[in-house]
Amino acid sequence: MIRILGIDPGSQRTGIGVIDVAADGRCAYVHCEALKLLDAEDFPSRLGLLCEGLERVLDDWQPTHVAIETVFMDKSATSALKLGHARGAALATVVRRKIGISEYAPRVIKQSLVGRGAADKTQVQHMVRLLLNLADMKLQADAADALAVALTHAHMSATAGRTGLAVHQLRRRGA
Amino acid sequence: MIRILGIDPGSQRTGIGVIDVAADGRCAYVHCEALKLLDAEDFPSRLGLLCEGLERVLDDWQPTHVAIETVFMDKSATSALKLGHARGAALATVVRRKIGISEYAPRVIKQSLVGRGAADKTQVQHMVRLLLNLADMKLQADAADALAVALTHAHMSATAGRTGLAVHQLRRRGA
Repeated sequence: MIRILGIDPGSQRTGIGVIDVAADGRCAYVHCEALKLLDAEDFPSRLGLLCEGLERVLDDWQPTHVAIETVFMDKSATSALKLGHARGAALATVVRRKIGISEYAPRVIKQSLVGRGAADKTQVQHMVRLLLNLADMKLQADAADALAVALTHAHMSATAGRTGLAVHQLRRRGA
Repeated sequence: MIRILGIDPGSQRTGIGVIDVAADGRCAYVHCEALKLLDAEDFPSRLGLLCEGLERVLDDWQPTHVAIETVFMDKSATSALKLGHARGAALATVVRRKIGISEYAPRVIKQSLVGRGAADKTQVQHMVRLLLNLADMKLQADAADALAVALTHAHMSATAGRTGLAVHQLRRRGA
């Protein structure tokens, strides 16, 4: 069994989602939450909260792999800079624990979950609920997006297993 | 005496500069280096190297304050994103140690060291050498920039002390 932590990084809220993947490829929901960072005193403190929250999740749930969304570059330089700060803080926290990281482009996540790279966010969230049997659970958008990237990694790893592709090659796809 | 660590963050090289400031405001050179991050296997590992190098410097030199340059936003979204990652990883490492952080805009650093916000980089590096008696020392550009932001914090703190301004107010200047 592998345990995947999905991260949807943001400087206001960072989504966290944890799933288990059985040997037969079936995925089960474990945990999700959204780290709220806006209460911090200033911007550096937000990054501190992000890292503290992420380390708590890493300690509590001990994932064997981390999956994170790449940035879709329709953003302004200002928002790219802010998002880069959050993503950099998150990646640095994970990589220092020697846990493998895979990155997936938004359209790869949509393709993997909905079958269409141009799917909208609500469709992705619908599929997250369906695949993880979360019909009745209140699910924050950021947490759902984090579960989506974790599910994408589960699907891509399964595909890689069948085709003999190494996971690190998949990482380059859609990068 | 206060000990200031200046950081010039970058995703290829991150400059580090440490100075001591005596009670009379005189600054003395302590240490500088450039963390080389390009040898890392992938981008997340670069951020890991950055944090490891920064933690080593924090352990070795025990600064009482950290100063870092804000980003001058003439950059493309792509380079802002990369720089954001490096800066976010650095800020998160520092803020988690509960060390105070001050941020200074490039023009504030130039104004503080050269007396002119539009000064060029070589003038700033010249003043770093002059102020810290480093005439004969080989000084990498990134390390010199890190010393420059540390010196700026020393000057601004001294000014704040004379005028009764709190340092956290100065942080907002030119942000």
